[in-house]
Amino acid sequence: MSEMESYLGAHFAEALEDLKAFCRIPSVSTDPAYADGIAEAARFVAGRMTQAGFTAVELLETGGHPAVYGELISDPSLPTFLVYGHYDVQPPDPLEKWQTPPFEPTERDGRLYARGVSDDKGPLLIPILVAEAFMKTAGRLPVNLKVLIEGEEESGSPNFEATLQTYRERLECDLVISADGAMWRPDRPSTTVASRGLVAMDISVTGASKDLHSGRHGGSAPNPIRALAILLASLHGDDGRVAVDGFLDGTAPPDPTIIAAIEAADFDAGEYYRDIGVQGQAPIADGRDLLIRQWLEPTLEFNGISGGYQGQGTKTVIPSSATAKITCRLIAGQKPDHILSVVSRHLQARLPPGFTLDIHRHGHGSEAFFVNPELPALAVAEGVLEELLGQKPLRVAMGATIPIGASFRKHLDREAIFFSFSTSDEDYHAPNEFFRLANFRIGLTAWAMLLTRLGSGGA
Amino acid sequence: MSEMESYLGAHFAEALEDLKAFCRIPSVSTDPAYADGIAEAARFVAGRMTQAGFTAVELLETGGHPAVYGELISDPSLPTFLVYGHYDVQPPDPLEKWQTPPFEPTERDGRLYARGVSDDKGPLLIPILVAEAFMKTAGRLPVNLKVLIEGEEESGSPNFEATLQTYRERLECDLVISADGAMWRPDRPSTTVASRGLVAMDISVTGASKDLHSGRHGGSAPNPIRALAILLASLHGDDGRVAVDGFLDGTAPPDPTIIAAIEAADFDAGEYYRDIGVQGQAPIADGRDLLIRQWLEPTLEFNGISGGYQGQGTKTVIPSSATAKITCRLIAGQKPDHILSVVSRHLQARLPPGFTLDIHRHGHGSEAFFVNPELPALAVAEGVLEELLGQKPLRVAMGATIPIGASFRKHLDREAIFFSFSTSDEDYHAPNEFFRLANFRIGLTAWAMLLTRLGSGGA
Repeated sequence: MSEMESYLGAHFAEALEDLKAFCRIPSVSTDPAYADGIAEAARFVAGRMTQAGFTAVELLETGGHPAVYGELISDPSLPTFLVYGHYDVQPPDPLEKWQTPPFEPTERDGRLYARGVSDDKGPLLIPILVAEAFMKTAGRLPVNLKVLIEGEEESGSPNFEATLQTYRERLECDLVISADGAMWRPDRPSTTVASRGLVAMDISVTGASKDLHSGRHGGSAPNPIRALAILLASLHGDDGRVAVDGFLDGTAPPDPTIIAAIEAADFDAGEYYRDIGVQGQAPIADGRDLLIRQWLEPTLEFNGISGGYQGQGTKTVIPSSATAKITCRLIAGQKPDHILSVVSRHLQARLPPGFTLDIHRHGHGSEAFFVNPELPALAVAEGVLEELLGQKPLRVAMGATIPIGASFRKHLDREAIFFSFSTSDEDYHAPNEFFRLANFRIGLTAWAMLLTRLGSGGA
Repeated sequence: MSEMESYLGAHFAEALEDLKAFCRIPSVSTDPAYADGIAEAARFVAGRMTQAGFTAVELLETGGHPAVYGELISDPSLPTFLVYGHYDVQPPDPLEKWQTPPFEPTERDGRLYARGVSDDKGPLLIPILVAEAFMKTAGRLPVNLKVLIEGEEESGSPNFEATLQTYRERLECDLVISADGAMWRPDRPSTTVASRGLVAMDISVTGASKDLHSGRHGGSAPNPIRALAILLASLHGDDGRVAVDGFLDGTAPPDPTIIAAIEAADFDAGEYYRDIGVQGQAPIADGRDLLIRQWLEPTLEFNGISGGYQGQGTKTVIPSSATAKITCRLIAGQKPDHILSVVSRHLQARLPPGFTLDIHRHGHGSEAFFVNPELPALAVAEGVLEELLGQKPLRVAMGATIPIGASFRKHLDREAIFFSFSTSDEDYHAPNEFFRLANFRIGLTAWAMLLTRLGSGGA
């Protein structure tokens, strides 16, 4: 590895410039206002892959934002790995909370700050740069590599399954390696072996057909903010667990090996709440309970709420409507369609008189995913992490959703492992997202080791 | 009155142009972004009064937006009336719901559409134009007139009481006549003899100190939208009445004369809900009950709510905080300070663990107001309305708040009557506010008759 290491070290400054250029592109997939940024990011990825030496580089039509594909086939007798990532990013708002603008990547204290730098632009760039390094040093890769970078992950990947189905021959491989995902904590290496599924919806309550004066009509006109509050407050029990009949249909008790990992982690709930800046009493006092809730139980979270006057001062209005944005994280056995159906039934049954309820679903949603714990490649990946980071990695579940695992299994009949160098504290989906530059650097070495070992029969 | 009537008729087109020019000025008092509009509207009123022949015209310092003062003293032996109005307007949003822009006054179907045209620019312009008509025709007024037009009514008049106190000698009068207020229905003349008080507050709930990923943190981090929903849902009972201990402290049973007016009105609840565009079951089925709720009971209404992501699509975030805007309408006996205190206590007691609650009050608020039913000027005003509109006016209570009644009583020791030609269905405080041009015209005649009769000893 020493020629490879020299190359990676000598070209790290260039790699960082590549990452900054990538992060300057505002590739927000959920908002049509960013359509130009999406198109530019897809072209950037395709261009960088071509420059690295990939062949058959192409923007794949998906029906939505394109996916970027490329391949480097060294030798048909070697195993073939399909690398997954996504070039789209979360919306950057609230903009006023960013210390530096979200699409002006800025280095501070060994970190690069930018929207999408950790999720997933930095991590996905690593295997492309490593492939280039193999081509420049050895002239070939130790394995065959296919790369598929989608552009709708942050929108719930509405066209991803159809894309896998359409291009399934081109995507044939022995194993998928996801460059999306995240290490659990900065102080402890980990591999993700499970992730929660997702279903997203907006619920809107309408009272009168127009806004009304809250003095004249107060006490008689239906106030949709009140109705929405009643509905939202009914969705959880006092302990914060989802209180919707049928929500747990089809689920099984949690995997004991992950419970064992949780117990090994000796997680401190008080420290968790201090870290995220919660004042006062901890909602969940016990660290084990907290991690079980975060990793192994389904959720129904309110992501946004709006209605009526939101400016400065007061406006004495009863609004016509109010809306809440909801996402549910699902565990194994929960089906997105069924969840939407039981939540809808729950809300309709509790809607006070004088209101109409509209439920708008976003995307198909996705089921939860588990990696096969016996997979040889998982052990190889864990070996690389242990060697580089000095600690045996924990096998952890992930509260967040990586729907692609289940999709690859379904359409390509292949397993997936997660090999990402972002860390879950890097404020992806929040202001001031960052990526640790040390992890960017070590990720390059780790991917080079991983591909080398997988190519020499390690998996 | 015939010379006066000819004058008013001949100059009505000019009056309409004056009103349009006034409505083009975006004088929103609650939002600092409109500071220029406020200043321009104050200058407009002062200029129009000077042009009408008023003397001692001056912008009075209030500590906030200025009030406009002017007077026309015909003869110290005649009674002196103080006319009240306000040149500030509600915010125009949601802008996208206006058929024509809020600050581009537009005539359609005998109505003038513009923000503030009904509340209160049209009604306040009437007495100024009538004073001008008296000066141009008779060379003098039948009474002494003082005019005080404030600029903070839509912000809860935070400096109005101090202003009355500071200028109480200049404002000395026999009676206050408010050009603010509204007729109850377009098909039935009415005089307002009671109005509800007001107290306004924002309540904000904070969980973590920053926005968090709802996948990673879902189920463990405190979600302030959930906490806010729980708090809001706790504030009313199933019947929609306020369910806060101590909220009714100090109140007495409703005035039987207003109950009698409600019974005389034979109000149709179904028609009311159809008019405001409510679909499905009526929240309150009985018209009498509905009007009692609207006129004689206090309220706690949610005027706005916000938190987290509000754009298109989804953003998987747990926001740091969420906020609701609340106004309470108060009946006789309720004190704004006490209401704020019992609502705060109620919310604090129900705040789930892991959150902090911040309550921000807007302005001082105001108590409810009742006109003395024996007041001779009230009978004069009712006589003018009956003669012009062909029906004996109903004495009605007003769900909305006109805090000035109580303020004039307190600081000038004078009663106030309401003599306004806006109608309560004219969508003030909502998109597409309008003022009926027929009422603008008849209001001119009515004010001329009122001042003539009050000057000839009618009161």
